[in-house]
Amino acid sequence: MPERSPLAPDRFPDLPPVAGVRLAATAADIRYKGRTDLLLVELAPGTTAAGVYTRTTMPSAPVIWCKKISAKGRARAIVVNSGNANAFTGKVGDASVRRTVDGVRAQLGCSAHEVYVASTGVIGEPLPDGKIVAALPALTSSLEAAAWDEAARAIMTTDTFPKAAARTARIAGTTVRINGIVKGSGMIAPNMGTMLGFVFTDARLPAAALRALLRASADRSFNATTVDGDTSTSDTVVLCATGQARHKAVRGAGDAHLKDFARALDAVMQDLAQQVVRDGEGAQKLIAITVKGAVSDATARRVGLAIANSPLVKTAIAGEDANWGRLVMAVGKSGERAEQRKLGIKIGGVQVAKGGLRVPGYDEAPVAAHMKGREIDVEIELGLGRGRATVWTCDLTHGYISINADYRS
Amino acid sequence: MPERSPLAPDRFPDLPPVAGVRLAATAADIRYKGRTDLLLVELAPGTTAAGVYTRTTMPSAPVIWCKKISAKGRARAIVVNSGNANAFTGKVGDASVRRTVDGVRAQLGCSAHEVYVASTGVIGEPLPDGKIVAALPALTSSLEAAAWDEAARAIMTTDTFPKAAARTARIAGTTVRINGIVKGSGMIAPNMGTMLGFVFTDARLPAAALRALLRASADRSFNATTVDGDTSTSDTVVLCATGQARHKAVRGAGDAHLKDFARALDAVMQDLAQQVVRDGEGAQKLIAITVKGAVSDATARRVGLAIANSPLVKTAIAGEDANWGRLVMAVGKSGERAEQRKLGIKIGGVQVAKGGLRVPGYDEAPVAAHMKGREIDVEIELGLGRGRATVWTCDLTHGYISINADYRS
Repeated sequence: MPERSPLAPDRFPDLPPVAGVRLAATAADIRYKGRTDLLLVELAPGTTAAGVYTRTTMPSAPVIWCKKISAKGRARAIVVNSGNANAFTGKVGDASVRRTVDGVRAQLGCSAHEVYVASTGVIGEPLPDGKIVAALPALTSSLEAAAWDEAARAIMTTDTFPKAAARTARIAGTTVRINGIVKGSGMIAPNMGTMLGFVFTDARLPAAALRALLRASADRSFNATTVDGDTSTSDTVVLCATGQARHKAVRGAGDAHLKDFARALDAVMQDLAQQVVRDGEGAQKLIAITVKGAVSDATARRVGLAIANSPLVKTAIAGEDANWGRLVMAVGKSGERAEQRKLGIKIGGVQVAKGGLRVPGYDEAPVAAHMKGREIDVEIELGLGRGRATVWTCDLTHGYISINADYRS
Repeated sequence: MPERSPLAPDRFPDLPPVAGVRLAATAADIRYKGRTDLLLVELAPGTTAAGVYTRTTMPSAPVIWCKKISAKGRARAIVVNSGNANAFTGKVGDASVRRTVDGVRAQLGCSAHEVYVASTGVIGEPLPDGKIVAALPALTSSLEAAAWDEAARAIMTTDTFPKAAARTARIAGTTVRINGIVKGSGMIAPNMGTMLGFVFTDARLPAAALRALLRASADRSFNATTVDGDTSTSDTVVLCATGQARHKAVRGAGDAHLKDFARALDAVMQDLAQQVVRDGEGAQKLIAITVKGAVSDATARRVGLAIANSPLVKTAIAGEDANWGRLVMAVGKSGERAEQRKLGIKIGGVQVAKGGLRVPGYDEAPVAAHMKGREIDVEIELGLGRGRATVWTCDLTHGYISINADYRS
């Protein structure tokens, strides 16, 4: 068991129940010994669902399945296993998903298209789905509303701490809850693929609205984080709304009554996404990169990700080196519109460069002091427009090499 | 001085003179102490030239200059300094280039557009061009045809060995020479930007033909290599043809008489590009990735580079781990067309996966043995078309982190 990340939060957050959500975890012996590795989430009848998935051309069997049923926008259950990703397993993998879904249907009496499946772990090995199906009856009878900590632990692979977040929001005067759990400690952990996130609310939301809210929020959270730029075969975030809260009906994602909900959803999603980065393999520092003055928000995000994925930037920060020349390099390589004579850079709030030049009389001392902290702030001003974005990453350390080069599949 | 790379060639190659090319190096005290850091190359009147440059939006002042004069297609001199990149230096940097060019003009009696300038080193600091200009008279009087080793050494920054290559070719029955030198030990070395390459031939070639030959060859060599995926502000490769060889006149790049020349140029360029990878920061293994069956050569190269830039693939190889799941992941994230059920993988010539599945009865032993060598071969079969490409990279090791995280600007 690797040591807990130095960037981990002090403790697991309080997650109150979300009406219509029950959870149960168990040790199904899929790959790990002596720990839980299987999670079942039961959702009340009428629950709507939306998902965002990895953009890989090599999706795992569960991702193929979830994408297929996502169009229906309904969920009654989510089954998640850790230890085996059921990826690059061909038709054998598809059959494993189908048997798992059938097992859940038999227990809960729902439709196949209401059962979401997610797997994380080794790639290319058949999933022992028999162990999952065999565990379902006991899991079903142990479902309860408070098992968030257990749920967050059961889906971990190389994670060094369980990850969850909770917020409340007001919809037309009624308070609703949003709880989320996530796992991941790399865009893909070492051969133990994947970032998996599951977010639950008791709000009553049409599936189309849920889908729009989730996509927009994912761009401001999970799609704005990176550990190593690699993309898993299995990345999945599912958002479920049980509809148990008694608020006024809302129409679409643009409904004015959803403004506070969207804000709270962003907060949960960003909290979860940042926890993944805080557990990034070998991470010693959390890095927030804000790009301003871009021609669009999307452009700002791509410039931010170019910086966040630069090995030279990440190693400089690991070395506590205020090496702003590497920031210039990374902006330049992003391929997005940028003009040298307009470029400004701040580190830890201190202006380092402006108008395409190092500021006159630049004093490195306060910047060097900032570099010694756990949380590093970088701000890039492109001076071209009003687009902006913040992205999060971690530094690239000897720890990353040790975890990934010393691991054996 | 860092230790010589374990992947370095045994010795500096023999480079015979190229008619019309004379070189001289000196210690101009630009940044380094006690070593040469300034190179002057003089080219015979009538020399044609072509260049390929970094695609960054933050080009250094010398790159901006060289791109401007490239259209003329003529060269009489190249000046290269190490220690300072003259990048992100604004108008001050442009003026430094201009004074350097004027200094060379005064010595050689040529036009400004015939003087190529390249700088490599620290970013964001004004170049002490006075030291360069002051050194030019002595450099000019010490020009000689045999100083290839000295030239290759003068342009080094964090390189652990000087890099050069030579070949001959036949053009319509006449033998011509192609000599090249290069520096670089990362796409960008630690804040010491840059890959710089200079290739010289005595062939007589119109500038337009030279340009077409260089671009095509760069795609099969320098543009098919990566150390860390970062892009320098200063990358430059210049190809000069002195026209001293007495061969039959050729028309364009497509002239049948240039077939052997193009082959030899590829050989020199690939030799130089691979030497850069062999000197990749922290490199312990040279990795060749061949992608076959793509819908086009360009697609094959992009899939290859996605694999070559994957930190998870590079750390797995550093750890001598036959982790083919990470190859699947990297193909998937490339964004290029790929179909899981057609994907095949070979490592060290051994079939690992085929038709989207691990091969039945896969025996890891011979693959594990291959992973222990200095040179690793990976082959990806996409099964979609006839496009193919080979790219070269090195592994990602603790050495890379040490060099880049421990460096102080």
